[in-house]
Amino acid sequence: MQENDIKNIEKMREESKTETMRVVSPEMEKILYKKFPMLDHGFIRVIDYMGTDASIVQAARVSYGVGTKKKQEDRGLINYLMRHGHTTPFEMCEIKLHIKLPIFVMRHWIRHRTANVNEYSARYSVLSNEFYIPELDQIARQSEINKQGKSDIAMDQVKAREIINIIKEVSSDAYEKYAHMLNDMSLARELARTILPVSVYTEVYWKIDLHNLLHFLKLRADSHAQYEIRCYANKILDIVKAWVPFTYDAFVNYRQNAVSVSKKCIELNKRMLKGEKISQENSGLSKGEWMEFINAFELQDFVS
Amino acid sequence: MQENDIKNIEKMREESKTETMRVVSPEMEKILYKKFPMLDHGFIRVIDYMGTDASIVQAARVSYGVGTKKKQEDRGLINYLMRHGHTTPFEMCEIKLHIKLPIFVMRHWIRHRTANVNEYSARYSVLSNEFYIPELDQIARQSEINKQGKSDIAMDQVKAREIINIIKEVSSDAYEKYAHMLNDMSLARELARTILPVSVYTEVYWKIDLHNLLHFLKLRADSHAQYEIRCYANKILDIVKAWVPFTYDAFVNYRQNAVSVSKKCIELNKRMLKGEKISQENSGLSKGEWMEFINAFELQDFVS
Amino acid sequence: MQENDIKNIEKMREESKTETMRVVSPEMEKILYKKFPMLDHGFIRVIDYMGTDASIVQAARVSYGVGTKKKQEDRGLINYLMRHGHTTPFEMCEIKLHIKLPIFVMRHWIRHRTANVNEYSARYSVLSNEFYIPELDQIARQSEINKQGKSDIAMDQVKAREIINIIKEVSSDAYEKYAHMLNDMSLARELARTILPVSVYTEVYWKIDLHNLLHFLKLRADSHAQYEIRCYANKILDIVKAWVPFTYDAFVNYRQNAVSVSKKCIELNKRMLKGEKISQENSGLSKGEWMEFINAFELQDFVS
Amino acid sequence: MQENDIKNIEKMREESKTETMRVVSPEMEKILYKKFPMLDHGFIRVIDYMGTDASIVQAARVSYGVGTKKKQEDRGLINYLMRHGHTTPFEMCEIKLHIKLPIFVMRHWIRHRTANVNEYSARYSVLSNEFYIPELDQIARQSEINKQGKSDIAMDQVKAREIINIIKEVSSDAYEKYAHMLNDMSLARELARTILPVSVYTEVYWKIDLHNLLHFLKLRADSHAQYEIRCYANKILDIVKAWVPFTYDAFVNYRQNAVSVSKKCIELNKRMLKGEKISQENSGLSKGEWMEFINAFELQDFVS
Repeated sequence: MQENDIKNIEKMREESKTETMRVVSPEMEKILYKKFPMLDHGFIRVIDYMGTDASIVQAARVSYGVGTKKKQEDRGLINYLMRHGHTTPFEMCEIKLHIKLPIFVMRHWIRHRTANVNEYSARYSVLSNEFYIPELDQIARQSEINKQGKSDIAMDQVKAREIINIIKEVSSDAYEKYAHMLNDMSLARELARTILPVSVYTEVYWKIDLHNLLHFLKLRADSHAQYEIRCYANKILDIVKAWVPFTYDAFVNYRQNAVSVSKKCIELNKRMLKGEKISQENSGLSKGEWMEFINAFELQDFVS
Repeated sequence: MQENDIKNIEKMREESKTETMRVVSPEMEKILYKKFPMLDHGFIRVIDYMGTDASIVQAARVSYGVGTKKKQEDRGLINYLMRHGHTTPFEMCEIKLHIKLPIFVMRHWIRHRTANVNEYSARYSVLSNEFYIPELDQIARQSEINKQGKSDIAMDQVKAREIINIIKEVSSDAYEKYAHMLNDMSLARELARTILPVSVYTEVYWKIDLHNLLHFLKLRADSHAQYEIRCYANKILDIVKAWVPFTYDAFVNYRQNAVSVSKKCIELNKRMLKGEKISQENSGLSKGEWMEFINAFELQDFVS
Repeated sequence: MQENDIKNIEKMREESKTETMRVVSPEMEKILYKKFPMLDHGFIRVIDYMGTDASIVQAARVSYGVGTKKKQEDRGLINYLMRHGHTTPFEMCEIKLHIKLPIFVMRHWIRHRTANVNEYSARYSVLSNEFYIPELDQIARQSEINKQGKSDIAMDQVKAREIINIIKEVSSDAYEKYAHMLNDMSLARELARTILPVSVYTEVYWKIDLHNLLHFLKLRADSHAQYEIRCYANKILDIVKAWVPFTYDAFVNYRQNAVSVSKKCIELNKRMLKGEKISQENSGLSKGEWMEFINAFELQDFVS
Repeated sequence: MQENDIKNIEKMREESKTETMRVVSPEMEKILYKKFPMLDHGFIRVIDYMGTDASIVQAARVSYGVGTKKKQEDRGLINYLMRHGHTTPFEMCEIKLHIKLPIFVMRHWIRHRTANVNEYSARYSVLSNEFYIPELDQIARQSEINKQGKSDIAMDQVKAREIINIIKEVSSDAYEKYAHMLNDMSLARELARTILPVSVYTEVYWKIDLHNLLHFLKLRADSHAQYEIRCYANKILDIVKAWVPFTYDAFVNYRQNAVSVSKKCIELNKRMLKGEKISQENSGLSKGEWMEFINAFELQDFVS
């Protein structure tokens, strides 16, 4: 189905090069429909978009009676909206992506509910023999500290290869039997597919507004997100940069790299500025919160 | 602010006439940004849109592995999706409208939650002296049958004129005092505006996907909706017809003019087809349900 | 974790037997926390609920100024609301379920976006060795007519047993290797789980309002839904019957067993009532639409 | 309708005092259905609720396999969830409020879309003669700095009284004409109500999950929110404190009084800790951003 689909899309691309009165994002037009490979068999492709940075300014002007057409002031207004959490104007831009991804990644993805989704159905159609096999350098032990993550210490190469072989073996064995049950025993697709591992690839059309997309990126381009979905999120960040450059900068400065700090931490910081020596003991913070404080304020060199 | 805004939009229209790779709806392009007057001071204007009938077919193909590029089959597939309530492909199209409407209409409008909204803020800016004054032929008594509606019997002209004068008087008096409190007493806008009637006009940018728009139209273009919001809904129906003609036809045939009939009514209809005479008494239906049955099946000439 | 969790829940059940001022559904209290087995390893359990039929009537009264406390009239009002698609009062009831289900069923389930979800995480915790193995009588060929479904013709027993053995074999083999990679090679859980088939069981807390639950049931208790999710939907229907009996009856009569019929079909039906002989040829309907018309109106005995 | 409604609710309160297996919030039970007066004619009343702090812990345990039944550790986990933005477990609690409020406040309220709403309909029923008249000490000039707010400088008493008289006059005049058009001219309610100012009171049943309620409170209990909605938000904060005390504390510490600080500000703070003198000039921040930095870190005494 995919190749087929690509042909249709490329055909549509050529055919549809035409005039429009709508606002256009020049950098976005350059990458429209282009296939960005992801992991071993996946991809991301922009199918359509609505609006630009100017659309956000325009919507804000309706609400707040503010804004202007001068580029520099547009940037300033977008920074202001982002800093102050005036999120509704960002909902006025929309993007539609065609994504190919492993089912276990899709299961994280779908948790973002404010979006429109059409996924390839394994009840209607046959899944292809494509499974996610991690790169050697992605194979890692369970982290001891982070209950949900991988350890940073690379795994012994021999062991890692062994693991990859097991993963390959399970996948190909499952697919062989899937094909056998479909073709030789004409089992219903809806049952045959139940033996396929969650590493099998699926495809989805995913449409979401810019505000909710940024929320997705805040969570999924984060170091706590699983590596595989993080790859997709980082590529989408590049796409956002091409599409709405002012919004991208504002997001990176005021959301992605921002930290939320509690009143308590502000008080501690003031005590430090006054020259007081602060340690976990005299901070009144729990061990966990203390570590978070040090990291948020980057105080590694300032505290005992 | 409005005039200002319009100038900006018109400017944007000229400036932004450019090439795009995105799918384009030719009929929609013709009306883009055009101002369709509504009621006495309102309007609807299409600011942006995403997708066409082809986008719905494309999304359906991803899910169901069905569809084709042949126009006639596209229409057939869209009819099929509409008849069977496969609604997600219709979410793949999006529209953004700029609407000027009375606050009491906005209060109905905003009940549709799956949409993006930026409304003119009377805390930031001053409202203009524009209030909805009904046409003479819209003035009608309270209906006796329909607790929520107007009677069909026209109201005596003299009375109607009297009513219009009262409405005008209240509006202009309120605005005069609003302006007085703002200008002569420099009262905060957020308080001054509280004396303005709900007939005052506001403006909104409203963005919604096609599936949710059709749901809005099913309810608001309906005869039970208040006349004023119905005017807006009917105009949006024209816009949908220009934008996605196949979807428009499917909606009119299989949703807007469709009726939901219960098992009981199907049974009664079969008894009638067998030649039995049916009346409310032998139908097993309540009076209300019986009337609904007659209307749904248009049986006025068939039952006693 | 499950057993553990059950103990906690049962403990909570005993401990929390106490007085409340809130409206109570007596039949619901009887089944609260009870574990209804589903498929081979799954279950449904009601964890909490909010509201009763009376809450719907109460909310409608606020909106429409209608309603009463007399039981019979409550039923009438709920029937009226259901028939006329006044859905917001049904949103005033809420239910929280604890569900254990295969991942491929969860993937259908999660498509219902207006709900709250907490799912067991295979990044944090180890999945147990539980996979969905279909009953012998559920093994069936792919349907020729229904692209997405099973055929009704039972499959040859020998073949069916063979298929079940393949499914069992793939599952146990995958789990063995999953456990091996976790325990002997201490691979990160987030990677090890990628080899498990979508038939593996997961657990979820799922909270949804009654209106959206009924929409879920309309789609998932339908004959077109896959058998496995239909089992869960049918059990939830029983739960709804215990919880809000008036709403349950109204749903079954006016939604679940209702059909949506187009203007065209109403016209055809009138021609038949006038004695005209109708066939697909003179109906003006496409073959597909004609079949749907016959089925909706149950006209098998009336048309040539 | 209101009195009537209250009688029904009180009746329900007495009648419904019964046993339940559901988790109960003892402090919440004490205030259930109680009418908390708001502004001059409004109120807030808790109609129903679902879940307690324990429900959040329980849901988190399903997802993250974490948590415990020990009170102190419950508090710790809830703090952890709040600090790290793990918001889904908070969606597992639900509350239903009965609120009487001016329409202009309702217009802010309804912008929070993830909620269930049934509002009193002025098409069905007659509005009572109740309008919001501000207290003398709430009358203030437009702020020069804050485009959307009131000035802090109190307004001259004589002027303030004059303003209140204008507001009273407009309201009573509008209501008199509303009643006249309804009673003496039997104008349809849907038209008559259009002359009433947005200060008229309406009633609503509002149901929302705890996560979305906290988001509402973050925005509406904030000093930038208009005074009138802030009164309601602050009362709801008290209700949340009674309902889910651990969550309330976590919200106040880690959300309500927390600030989001950008990378740039963290860098500036480090330079200050190293003893450098920082001013707007050498900060690289815009004037606006600099002021926000000073306020966020409370650096008034530390910078030149």
